[in-house]
Amino acid sequence: MRSTLLSRRDLDFLLYEWLDVEALTDDPRYQEHSRDTFDAVLDLSEQLATRHFATHNKKGDEHEPSFDGTRVTIIPEAKQALDAFVKADLMGAGMAYEAGGLQLPATVTGACFAWFQAANVGTAAYPMLTIGNANLLLAHGTPEQIETYAKPLVAGRFFGTMCLSEPQAGSSLGDIVTRAEAQPDGSYRLFGNKMWISGGEHDLAENIVHLVLAKIPGAPEGTKGISLFIVPKLLVESDGSLGERNDVTLAGLNHKMGYRGTTNTVLNFGDGTHTPGGAAGAVGYLVGEADKGLSYMFHMMNEARIGVGLGATALGYTGYLKSVDYARLREQGRPVTAKDPAAKPVPIIEHADVKRMLLAQKSYVEGALALEMFCMRMVDEQRIAETVAARNRIGLLLDILTPIAKSWPSQWCLEANNLAIQVHGGYGYTREYDVEQHYRDNRLNPIHEGTHGIQGLDLLGRKVTQQGGISLRLLSESIGRTIADAEESGGELAELAEQLGEVLGRVGTITAGLFASGDIDAAMANSSVYLEAVGHLVVAWIWLEQMLACEGKTGDFYDGKRQAGRYFFRYELPKTGPQLTLLASLDRTTLEMRDAWF
Amino acid sequence: MRSTLLSRRDLDFLLYEWLDVEALTDDPRYQEHSRDTFDAVLDLSEQLATRHFATHNKKGDEHEPSFDGTRVTIIPEAKQALDAFVKADLMGAGMAYEAGGLQLPATVTGACFAWFQAANVGTAAYPMLTIGNANLLLAHGTPEQIETYAKPLVAGRFFGTMCLSEPQAGSSLGDIVTRAEAQPDGSYRLFGNKMWISGGEHDLAENIVHLVLAKIPGAPEGTKGISLFIVPKLLVESDGSLGERNDVTLAGLNHKMGYRGTTNTVLNFGDGTHTPGGAAGAVGYLVGEADKGLSYMFHMMNEARIGVGLGATALGYTGYLKSVDYARLREQGRPVTAKDPAAKPVPIIEHADVKRMLLAQKSYVEGALALEMFCMRMVDEQRIAETVAARNRIGLLLDILTPIAKSWPSQWCLEANNLAIQVHGGYGYTREYDVEQHYRDNRLNPIHEGTHGIQGLDLLGRKVTQQGGISLRLLSESIGRTIADAEESGGELAELAEQLGEVLGRVGTITAGLFASGDIDAAMANSSVYLEAVGHLVVAWIWLEQMLACEGKTGDFYDGKRQAGRYFFRYELPKTGPQLTLLASLDRTTLEMRDAWF
Repeated sequence: MRSTLLSRRDLDFLLYEWLDVEALTDDPRYQEHSRDTFDAVLDLSEQLATRHFATHNKKGDEHEPSFDGTRVTIIPEAKQALDAFVKADLMGAGMAYEAGGLQLPATVTGACFAWFQAANVGTAAYPMLTIGNANLLLAHGTPEQIETYAKPLVAGRFFGTMCLSEPQAGSSLGDIVTRAEAQPDGSYRLFGNKMWISGGEHDLAENIVHLVLAKIPGAPEGTKGISLFIVPKLLVESDGSLGERNDVTLAGLNHKMGYRGTTNTVLNFGDGTHTPGGAAGAVGYLVGEADKGLSYMFHMMNEARIGVGLGATALGYTGYLKSVDYARLREQGRPVTAKDPAAKPVPIIEHADVKRMLLAQKSYVEGALALEMFCMRMVDEQRIAETVAARNRIGLLLDILTPIAKSWPSQWCLEANNLAIQVHGGYGYTREYDVEQHYRDNRLNPIHEGTHGIQGLDLLGRKVTQQGGISLRLLSESIGRTIADAEESGGELAELAEQLGEVLGRVGTITAGLFASGDIDAAMANSSVYLEAVGHLVVAWIWLEQMLACEGKTGDFYDGKRQAGRYFFRYELPKTGPQLTLLASLDRTTLEMRDAWF
Repeated sequence: MRSTLLSRRDLDFLLYEWLDVEALTDDPRYQEHSRDTFDAVLDLSEQLATRHFATHNKKGDEHEPSFDGTRVTIIPEAKQALDAFVKADLMGAGMAYEAGGLQLPATVTGACFAWFQAANVGTAAYPMLTIGNANLLLAHGTPEQIETYAKPLVAGRFFGTMCLSEPQAGSSLGDIVTRAEAQPDGSYRLFGNKMWISGGEHDLAENIVHLVLAKIPGAPEGTKGISLFIVPKLLVESDGSLGERNDVTLAGLNHKMGYRGTTNTVLNFGDGTHTPGGAAGAVGYLVGEADKGLSYMFHMMNEARIGVGLGATALGYTGYLKSVDYARLREQGRPVTAKDPAAKPVPIIEHADVKRMLLAQKSYVEGALALEMFCMRMVDEQRIAETVAARNRIGLLLDILTPIAKSWPSQWCLEANNLAIQVHGGYGYTREYDVEQHYRDNRLNPIHEGTHGIQGLDLLGRKVTQQGGISLRLLSESIGRTIADAEESGGELAELAEQLGEVLGRVGTITAGLFASGDIDAAMANSSVYLEAVGHLVVAWIWLEQMLACEGKTGDFYDGKRQAGRYFFRYELPKTGPQLTLLASLDRTTLEMRDAWF
């Protein structure tokens, strides 16, 4: 029986037939690997996700973590699943050997991790945060910090969090007020409250490593005065043993619509509940230089944003597969031209409108998965780049793709879940089926790790303009190369290439026009619309890439890819038309709207 | 403080400044009413909804009805609220005096009922079903049936249900298998299972009147062999007193994502749990003629479909108002052109992207409310029409508007709730705020009372083609009159009229082209896309109507209406462009897709 979590066939296509992940093994970094080791870890991930994660997805939703004022209780299946994940060395799958990892390519570990997100996004959030946390420390920590915190994270003994938001400062990190006071021994004491902290309290691991943004008194205002601190739940002695309780306390849990398996917390730092070393404040250790915390955090955030996009994709993908299965089994109605009411009903997959809802899902989830895998491949490319110039080039391309890799699946794979419910009819609206939970879980993704609106501002206000527009130029060149390939292959692909080229040309012209106007308010007013239009352009490009990789190949799998690609070009890409027209007009409708008119 | 359920100011505008509901009092049917009585019942509805319904909305969601195998338990606040509703004579607000009603116009009772749906759609479902049930019996029942069942429904002593679906037959009612066997005394005995029955079991009223579709053995196959029966939970004696338990038993409750306050049941008819009169089967009484049940049910369904649209609108509306309030209070970030990080943060309502999300909601929910009120006004117009020809004409216009009145708010006011969550950020994703529940509740609306896809088939396959296309012609003429009015007023409205006229023209051409093709499969393949395009056309027309009603008027309310109308024409109506292009191409992408390719 095929899995209803993800399609391994599709992953194999993306990794081996399109992105040529095997080529990475030519590089010294990945030379000990081969397709065999890649396949083995993919097999293992599918098995563990199916046996240990999918099995408690519904239970984790029905029995969300609870807090009795002292302890947080989480269903035991979550710890069992995470123990299995850790035991299989998956926490360090992508980390370097010297950090205790398996040094697998990001493309492979991304594909592996998607299995866990598809199976149980609530439980999978713990390793996702822990991996991001460890990667940040491996990149920016001192050797001692790496030894004390990063390695136990990689080994799965400690879990991690990222503590950015505060009750008054969500999207606007420059306004955080948590303060870090320097101590004579070089450590800091932190005081403040953090909001929306996933994995902020639990007994799933021996210790929790909080990475906390705070301001050192006297630091510059805004984002330029933010520093980053390691704040462990339990202090770690010099021999690595666990010591005293630090003054990080749980003020309460947030109760969410979905993603319920992940504890989401309000944390108090230094509220006096504990007095480590007999003094006030939560003990913290500065990471890197003072006031540069946000840039380190963005190292982690960019990875987290692709991870969010991948999670949204995984939820969309499993909902798609489940709705295909349902549509094959459910018999209802007859073809529109059938006149005999006594004829046997047909499986609903035969109705055009059901096929439309399934094709739409297929075009969203396979398009999104390909986009995420492409970004992961760029991460690998960046790692093995031989020159600084090459590394920077790839970094600039990744910069412009990241807001899209985060936002596009968060929007369209949520829409896929919406359609998966619709295919199921009334049954899809009940908790007896899985798809309603996927829809609730997926609704978080346009909010966390930078809202949809923030991604739009990031894309248009920062990524598109950085270094004289080089990122957009690099993206255009990449799309242009695909267009050239498709034109060369002729026929249908050349026609699609022409359609893509027209949209690409309009995006270029309109982007230039926005900034040429000199009216920054008007240029930025519709940054979300810009994000959505460029998102569709990018995913259409990724679809054309996939269709090129199918060229000359026969069989149901390739025919399905081609048809989903056609669907995207016929039903989806044209939606950019009115969006780009609106952008070109420098529309001021929202700017002219007044508070009193609502 | 203004209400966050609905805007009374907006309702007053729609009823009195646009639809001239006061003119109805010239007709003998409504002559005892005046604006004063209309206002009084609107005031009362707002008060009761605010005090008795809104107050247990969250509790009803958190504590959904439970079934212990014998009894269904519903939180007591629901019964208290419904008792208050009944005591205020609102169950019969729209019914004729002789039935025990207040004989108010449908436009007014619709506006009243929207308050209850905005406050608590789960509890409001009980009267909605009861009113529909009573209206059907008043239209098609015998005098005795009216006396025995309809009057207690109007008085709120009995509640009603509509039992259509079965586990194997949801959208495809022709496939129901519940059978009704004629008895010598003229009654029937029913045997079968019904699925998705809202309000199927509870202790909220003295009795439950199920209206059940079933087949009499030997009846024609399909929808032409369906009859309608009254099946009371408790048999009613000739003196009106309640007698023996009928053989209608609760097999179980469905557990839904939202709309949790409404019991949703699987009911067994005639499974032998009870043996009324010592014999097998559930006692039922035929309504009207045998085999004509579906036409009677559609009488109720059309009303129910407008009611569903109104409920979706009400949920969208309250979410909109709550997100406006939140955006006014929540301070975060600074204008995009502000450079000083120490400047005070601004309320998020000042950010262009937040204004976009609020304006989009305003354009959806005020557009939808106006559409529903327009349909209600047509119901009134139909009731007081002086000639059969006039009545039929209005009926044909209502026929084509009904699938849109049902589906458009179900899609776009759900999207409004999506945006309301997004405006709230992380807070909107928690159960501490209201908007996540509205989103979950509203997700039912594209499914029940005919799915989105069914509405598309109904619109394109039935309503557009009926009687040689007269319905679409009547709609086009109505839109044409508004266009002419707007052209006459000149300026901005004339420009919008031109834009609307172009879309209207394209819809006409493309509709003709679909059927001229002779390829019914291709013509119907994108009926959902057609539904959505025509829906946007209709709502744009309704917006132009509202803008005309604002002409020459000044003040924040009118400026807000105008700006929301502009938003709809600039951001929304252009979305029909690619949809109509797709329809014009007679696209076969879905038809050519094969099962094995998924």
